[in-house]
Amino acid sequence: MKENDLMKDIVALCKRRGIIYPSSEIYGGFANTWDYGPYGVLLKNNVKKIWWEDMVQKRSDIVGLDSAILMNPKVWEASGHLTEFTDPLVECKKCHKRFKSDSLASNSNEDVEFSKKLNIPELAARYSVGKQCPECKASNWATESKQFNLMFETHIGSTESKDNITYLRPETAQGIFVNFKNVLDSTRVKLPFGIAQIGKAFRNEITPGNFTFRTLEFEQFELEYFCYPKDADADFTKWREARFNWYVGLGINKDKLRLTDHPKADLAHYAKAVSDVEYEFPFGWAELEGIANRGDYDLAQHQKVSGQNLEYADEDNNRILPYVIEPSGGVDRATLAFLVDAYSEEQVNKTPLLPRACLPVGREGLGEEGVTPHLTSPYQGEEKRSETRTVLRFHPKLAPIKAAILPLVKKDPELVNMAQEIYAELKSSFFVEYDEDGTVGKRYRRQDEIGTPFCITIDSDSLTNKTVTIRHRDSMAQDRINAAEIKEFLQEKLQ
Amino acid sequence: MKENDLMKDIVALCKRRGIIYPSSEIYGGFANTWDYGPYGVLLKNNVKKIWWEDMVQKRSDIVGLDSAILMNPKVWEASGHLTEFTDPLVECKKCHKRFKSDSLASNSNEDVEFSKKLNIPELAARYSVGKQCPECKASNWATESKQFNLMFETHIGSTESKDNITYLRPETAQGIFVNFKNVLDSTRVKLPFGIAQIGKAFRNEITPGNFTFRTLEFEQFELEYFCYPKDADADFTKWREARFNWYVGLGINKDKLRLTDHPKADLAHYAKAVSDVEYEFPFGWAELEGIANRGDYDLAQHQKVSGQNLEYADEDNNRILPYVIEPSGGVDRATLAFLVDAYSEEQVNKTPLLPRACLPVGREGLGEEGVTPHLTSPYQGEEKRSETRTVLRFHPKLAPIKAAILPLVKKDPELVNMAQEIYAELKSSFFVEYDEDGTVGKRYRRQDEIGTPFCITIDSDSLTNKTVTIRHRDSMAQDRINAAEIKEFLQEKLQ
Repeated sequence: MKENDLMKDIVALCKRRGIIYPSSEIYGGFANTWDYGPYGVLLKNNVKKIWWEDMVQKRSDIVGLDSAILMNPKVWEASGHLTEFTDPLVECKKCHKRFKSDSLASNSNEDVEFSKKLNIPELAARYSVGKQCPECKASNWATESKQFNLMFETHIGSTESKDNITYLRPETAQGIFVNFKNVLDSTRVKLPFGIAQIGKAFRNEITPGNFTFRTLEFEQFELEYFCYPKDADADFTKWREARFNWYVGLGINKDKLRLTDHPKADLAHYAKAVSDVEYEFPFGWAELEGIANRGDYDLAQHQKVSGQNLEYADEDNNRILPYVIEPSGGVDRATLAFLVDAYSEEQVNKTPLLPRACLPVGREGLGEEGVTPHLTSPYQGEEKRSETRTVLRFHPKLAPIKAAILPLVKKDPELVNMAQEIYAELKSSFFVEYDEDGTVGKRYRRQDEIGTPFCITIDSDSLTNKTVTIRHRDSMAQDRINAAEIKEFLQEKLQ
Repeated sequence: MKENDLMKDIVALCKRRGIIYPSSEIYGGFANTWDYGPYGVLLKNNVKKIWWEDMVQKRSDIVGLDSAILMNPKVWEASGHLTEFTDPLVECKKCHKRFKSDSLASNSNEDVEFSKKLNIPELAARYSVGKQCPECKASNWATESKQFNLMFETHIGSTESKDNITYLRPETAQGIFVNFKNVLDSTRVKLPFGIAQIGKAFRNEITPGNFTFRTLEFEQFELEYFCYPKDADADFTKWREARFNWYVGLGINKDKLRLTDHPKADLAHYAKAVSDVEYEFPFGWAELEGIANRGDYDLAQHQKVSGQNLEYADEDNNRILPYVIEPSGGVDRATLAFLVDAYSEEQVNKTPLLPRACLPVGREGLGEEGVTPHLTSPYQGEEKRSETRTVLRFHPKLAPIKAAILPLVKKDPELVNMAQEIYAELKSSFFVEYDEDGTVGKRYRRQDEIGTPFCITIDSDSLTNKTVTIRHRDSMAQDRINAAEIKEFLQEKLQ
């Protein structure tokens, strides 16, 4: 399958199955903005919940924070965003559309080689003069390349003046730095310690795209881990590895994940080291999360601009500005990576695996794929009919719905009754679904497409011996367990 | 205690104990914006989590959604916000500060009576002409009263023009209405069903205030419950009661909570009925949540402006526009109500209650308050020393920290060891704290102030018989339980 087609198929599945919709779609959409549907919001919530549990709940050295999106503009003066957070753009004098200055060169080898020798204004001039506006095809169209800030501006109060300007935060991190002293003063944290935050951020990107990968509005999970300067290198190394392993632990294919260290020469003046966790999307390798050793730059800047002392006093009352290690990830990007990585289409023209436990002693081998097993449940055959199945092979912790409860047939009130009782009990603890519509095979496919790891089927045997069938999403194998043990089974799988 | 003093004490506690900080505080704060600190974010997360579980997880007729903050401006044209979501303001010609036109009258009885006879422009004129600007004291200061929109404006792309204007959503509800068709098409919902959403919204209020009660930026939990028009009255009544009971179920004092029905004459033209859940804050009764029967107004408007068919087809293929019942609450307001309601200061100059179970048979009465009980654990006496204790009596489900694990003394490595083992095991399932600093009495007080319902103390008996003391926040009573049963104990209390 071509890579573009794969992204198209994923976008289509997301819309068809209530995972992600184009935002404001009935009005023709809006600037590559997306809405998470009923299953998408559960998936994204799981990503956030797992990060929060791993970062805050399970650790004794990290606390949480939830700071506001609208902040005092001085924050962005101190952080450098007001002057540095810019893109060089040229504008068409006729249609007023703007383009990234360094995006005007073609991808031809000649252009790429030549471009390397030019600075950005030269680049913009070289590839606009004598050419047409890419949008309206006007000639003699381009202004000079200018720096434009990527922060969204708005105004507090009802007048627009310089006095009441504010910005939609372009990152959550600064909310952590400006609260550093508050956290020190109001909790019992001791160096090294971290402050973690999940929240929305906004960037006025000229070229958003690649589904939810680059959007104007996005959610971040950011950790600022403050440490003694002498320990910063070691802590950077620890976090660099820990963050890579976090994605692997949630089932991401290790071959599609890599750590890329930024060359020293490319680092911002204050950064000591930066590594990116990158995932190989169908559109290429792209950053999920950056881990940076930012030294004491942020605290020093805020100390300078605010005039407040932001030093940390240790037990011997030595006062220092801590260094900070920042693992900064995108929730939407992580969610997209889990989604893309989980996506698979496969041919189902053989009888699916029957687990060994279901086979009589001595005939275990008959359960292998491609061989009709001795024992099949009467409705397992339904799976054979569809030729291709689409599956989201999510880690059970990430799956939006943990289990679907299916009475084998809708017409048997006893089956329906038992299924609904099981459903009612499970939903007090888990996100589960009840489904009685259509053949059981079709219902399995529906759950495969939203990544439900377990289907629990209630059949006539269930009524007599109080057992149910657990059908596993990935192997399509089926186990028989006691109805009374379902909750424990799910709890164990979600550890 | 005076009511203002009470709010001041709560604000001070919130800052001192890491619950809520003034936002951008090192820069002098920002427009009544607040940040949730380490304990505040856990409290607010619990409010959201419980709402989400009750609305989405535990019900089979409601699905979730997470739509974008930035939407196509057509959405606000259709919803009426562009024209109707306004405040009448007068501006000072000199200092350019703006005031709500109907806020200029004094609170004197004469003014209040007189005001009732005037419309808003008349009001503004009457109370500005011949008076001074409340801000800069200029005379002859006020413009005429004009309507100003309360939506924050911003621009997509780097130019400011009418073509690329957008707004920060003033409510999350419209994100639900514009996705109504998407949800219908991609899930198996059948009327009646609801779509629930939690998210940030923004209103450019001229007079934010009362701590986190009215802020420019706030979080909402909104449910749009779609139903057959014939059932709308009954569903409205159900939700009106259900939402009141939700707060009561989480421990809010019933005497401080009321339902206020809006008089028919005051309703917007499309609203069939509106009730507010109100809480009696120290600053007066104020709305936590509004429940409205909005008829088919929203879907009809979006259908009209978008030109898309938003009808629902039932099983007999009858096509209708459903009615909607909207319970719309503020997460920050609910959090503030739980906080204010939980806050108490009390004198502790008597020996606290010892639970009956700890007393020898025949002497149970000795455990009553004010009587020195026969049996006291050696360190229970520590509680007597402080004269006043401040307690946040949160429902255990709301409490930021579920339990604190305290070795009786820090110097005994065996106690510390056992306490840390218990802590390590519990934190994989709960937000818990470990604290070994200071007297156990001081540690209890610290936990009281952040509302931790249970303190688990490990003493020398713990080493020999593997039991621990559970100290209850509200009664200060102490139970002895097996260390192996702590997890089960907490799970049960958090049901």
